[in-house]
Amino acid sequence: MKILKINMGNLSVKEDLVTKYKRLGGRALTSKILHDEVSPTCHPLGPNNKLIFATGLLTGSGASSADRYSVGGKSPLTGGIKESNAGGISGLTLGKLGIRALVFENIREDFKIVHLSKNGVKFDDAAPILGKDLSEAASWIRGKYGKHVAVWLIGVTGEQKMNLAAIAGQDKDGHPTRYNGRGGLGAVAGSKGIKAIVLDASGVEKNRPKRKEEFKKSLKQYHGWLMETPATSKVLPEFGTASLVKTTNALGALPTRNFSIGVMEDYENISGEKLREIILERGGEGTPTHACMPGCIIRCSNVFSDKEGNRVTGPIEYENIGLLGSNLDISNLDDIADLNLLCNEYGIDTIETGGALGVLMAQNVIPFGDGKRAVEVLKEVKAGTPLGRIIGSGAEVIGKIYGTVHVPTAKGQTMPAYDPRAIKGLGVTYATSPMGADHTAGQTVRAQIDHHSPEGQVEVSKNAQTVNTIWDHLGMCMFSSGAVQGRWDILADLVSAYTGEEFTGEDIVAIANETLKVEHSFNRKAGFTKEHDKLSEYFYYEENKGSKTVFDVNQDELETIGVERNDL
Amino acid sequence: MKILKINMGNLSVKEDLVTKYKRLGGRALTSKILHDEVSPTCHPLGPNNKLIFATGLLTGSGASSADRYSVGGKSPLTGGIKESNAGGISGLTLGKLGIRALVFENIREDFKIVHLSKNGVKFDDAAPILGKDLSEAASWIRGKYGKHVAVWLIGVTGEQKMNLAAIAGQDKDGHPTRYNGRGGLGAVAGSKGIKAIVLDASGVEKNRPKRKEEFKKSLKQYHGWLMETPATSKVLPEFGTASLVKTTNALGALPTRNFSIGVMEDYENISGEKLREIILERGGEGTPTHACMPGCIIRCSNVFSDKEGNRVTGPIEYENIGLLGSNLDISNLDDIADLNLLCNEYGIDTIETGGALGVLMAQNVIPFGDGKRAVEVLKEVKAGTPLGRIIGSGAEVIGKIYGTVHVPTAKGQTMPAYDPRAIKGLGVTYATSPMGADHTAGQTVRAQIDHHSPEGQVEVSKNAQTVNTIWDHLGMCMFSSGAVQGRWDILADLVSAYTGEEFTGEDIVAIANETLKVEHSFNRKAGFTKEHDKLSEYFYYEENKGSKTVFDVNQDELETIGVERNDL
Repeated sequence: MKILKINMGNLSVKEDLVTKYKRLGGRALTSKILHDEVSPTCHPLGPNNKLIFATGLLTGSGASSADRYSVGGKSPLTGGIKESNAGGISGLTLGKLGIRALVFENIREDFKIVHLSKNGVKFDDAAPILGKDLSEAASWIRGKYGKHVAVWLIGVTGEQKMNLAAIAGQDKDGHPTRYNGRGGLGAVAGSKGIKAIVLDASGVEKNRPKRKEEFKKSLKQYHGWLMETPATSKVLPEFGTASLVKTTNALGALPTRNFSIGVMEDYENISGEKLREIILERGGEGTPTHACMPGCIIRCSNVFSDKEGNRVTGPIEYENIGLLGSNLDISNLDDIADLNLLCNEYGIDTIETGGALGVLMAQNVIPFGDGKRAVEVLKEVKAGTPLGRIIGSGAEVIGKIYGTVHVPTAKGQTMPAYDPRAIKGLGVTYATSPMGADHTAGQTVRAQIDHHSPEGQVEVSKNAQTVNTIWDHLGMCMFSSGAVQGRWDILADLVSAYTGEEFTGEDIVAIANETLKVEHSFNRKAGFTKEHDKLSEYFYYEENKGSKTVFDVNQDELETIGVERNDL
Repeated sequence: MKILKINMGNLSVKEDLVTKYKRLGGRALTSKILHDEVSPTCHPLGPNNKLIFATGLLTGSGASSADRYSVGGKSPLTGGIKESNAGGISGLTLGKLGIRALVFENIREDFKIVHLSKNGVKFDDAAPILGKDLSEAASWIRGKYGKHVAVWLIGVTGEQKMNLAAIAGQDKDGHPTRYNGRGGLGAVAGSKGIKAIVLDASGVEKNRPKRKEEFKKSLKQYHGWLMETPATSKVLPEFGTASLVKTTNALGALPTRNFSIGVMEDYENISGEKLREIILERGGEGTPTHACMPGCIIRCSNVFSDKEGNRVTGPIEYENIGLLGSNLDISNLDDIADLNLLCNEYGIDTIETGGALGVLMAQNVIPFGDGKRAVEVLKEVKAGTPLGRIIGSGAEVIGKIYGTVHVPTAKGQTMPAYDPRAIKGLGVTYATSPMGADHTAGQTVRAQIDHHSPEGQVEVSKNAQTVNTIWDHLGMCMFSSGAVQGRWDILADLVSAYTGEEFTGEDIVAIANETLKVEHSFNRKAGFTKEHDKLSEYFYYEENKGSKTVFDVNQDELETIGVERNDL
């Protein structure tokens, strides 16, 4: 495997072997390269930031739910280190090309399509797809480069270097709807003039496990767990992530009306059950059970269709429902799907978008609950009007534009769909993760703990942060968590057999913890201190009337996470 | 002297003696109270911030150029401690009422007029003046409360809690044009529902020096210096601060086209000489020599009139010319006056406004050099349109909205009109002052040093920061600097005789340095580190072609300022 470095300023390419980093993949690799090579105080959109794509250690191995990849860079949204990972087939294809990491350096004004194949790298003018919706751009790319290629794309928002711009990868059916959503990394790509990356692995020899028999044995065990665990074999395939709506609403944690309260009166209209019912009822192109990666056993994704059965968009995730639905007081799944569709067409993070619209609704710029109006206003993002630019800047910046304290963020990033006053372990994650408010950086919603109590949350979040980093290192989906968590030795066998490097269960945990240290170290050098390990202040003094709680986890205890991980 | 505390939440009033703080005035007092009473991580617009008005130790003494006062609070623009001071008669009148500090606590939704007189505090509904231009609001106040009152006011921008909202005090002629401009303190006032503060000192006995004869003697000496020093007796009265245009242009430090270069081809059209020529030629209500405070010998202010001799606005300061003129590529003083007028009517900081418009011009939202269009666009701030809101958020936030690295700020605040690549001592001040980019926090333009050289700038800035803090403590205008600087013993005699407290020259210096420590300490607890002691990154790698320099002061040496002052 190699590391490919592309200088977008002069379009030069350099190839390194991964030698130094050979035990690192995914987030462990993006974060380590950022730590080693990027000045933490650089401007995220300036020439000194880098944008790094890296495959997980298991990506391409054939293990279920393990074809994920990471994108890393200094985030324009948080000002800190960022990693955002996704499934689909783009990371898989990068791995097929023998590339462990793809590092983009420098900036440029115009936009290029970067084409990677066994013949090397070429740069094409991106003008024909600038300003286009992502589905159209992806079609154009397939038309030009062949139906077999995989792509990464930024949308009109990335071209405009907006904070909520994401990077879209492609699912197994060719839709550019698998998202490196968080942290504004689409804007970093935009600053570097990367409109699209086309991955053509034709004619490349397949990666095979280094120790085939061992790998087969471990794989069987791993797949067996996935199939015998209810979450991965039944709940997620049937209801997808939206199965969480009922859970969080019952906890008073479903963000409603700009994170002012954690329950929604008509939550049943947006539940996973309702979503499944509608999709099945409408038939046609819709499906409640859809795999983003080939061979995934969990298949938590879905395709949502309209009343005529025509595909609208997909997937409708729990986060999308929480942020674009309840958070906006919208309880109509068709409206949510329309918003979701625009996010997918413009290349934007649904969470940050929901956060942005929520703050604007609380400021009476858009009426709460008015899905049609929200759709119209979101279209201004594409047009780049002043209001579109405002939405594109994300919730934290909008709070500054409108002078309001009611901004559901931590380290500048919008919270995912869990009110931290009601699921306090996630509050700890939001406050202490080097990633800012990000559930995938330390998900605690399924922990066996009283989520309303401040006790024990620091430990729960701290462990979850390590566990999530393990998935991000290996390229595994966090939904395998229920089946695999804690079985590190067997997982290590799987990784060892596939890569030929020796890993123990302890190694797997140690690399995750080391990665967190590397990230905390980067952030500290970027100017973060324990004072930044906080949520927006209102969560501490305004009660969530759904859960009847404020966020009251002991701050000194909470800060121990950052302190411990700051000793590099 | 007393400290008056007003809780704007429940409109309750508490009175304290200044005992604990009796040797502190102005900035020394606002910063100390903030340090002692405000949580550094609080939201600047939330209930836990305070807004403090404090008179300088010499305010009201009759000493020339010494009736200034400070306003302090945690800044929504920088996220750190803020002090902004101004002249005029409002601080003077607060002093007459026997109030050393006026502390506003808590927040409220509606707006009040806070009326202070010998009868105490009363609160009136501010509805009749909401949304009005400041000149109209001030007239209304005089009509209601009498022509003899002094006022502080916020404009439509403060009502909207915009980052560039300032607090306007009143000059000796009743115009609300003396500004606590920097740091968005008008937004803090807005968050607390303070639309206006009316100060009625009628029937109050005059403050007199505690030791009259000693005071008279020191005062004579001090006034003698002011009258014999060319800067204070000739240059500033004749040309005002605009005398600097030629100086900075010659240094390549006149910010031009969004701080991209430091020289302007037709700088002579906006020089102090040209300004004087136009004002004298037009006659009528205009004057090139105007005192903002009664009895001021320096009289650096001016009144600008139109071709018919009717007052347009005043003062046209160097900073206004640099930020609203050359920085926008506008070289027509009438256009600059029109922009200046709108700033005065809307209650906004001219520096931050010029910074905001400059970034927008560089993004092609407004054409560079188009004064008429700039005026039209600035009117959107009053209307609160999305573009108006964008302008109101200030340059740093606009940089995030438009995804650009070309933002002339330090700690979130727009730089005043000196390119830090060409006057490097000011670059050090911008980077290291607890106030962010602020020339009045450590002005080095008149230092005898090669301004293009990186050598010696740290020492020059460090000393200037102490000296500026001395003025801010005593309520003195920094323009007395040329005459008084270094003569601390005589100044101490003046203060001792007036207040009855004993001060030596060393005490005066020590209090200033202690104040800086208090401020650094606050900022450190707010999350600032040495990594924040930087300018926008582009100043380090993009050459100012006017001066042929980048900002290259040794960073380690520069950071010693913050380190030394961080030992509280």
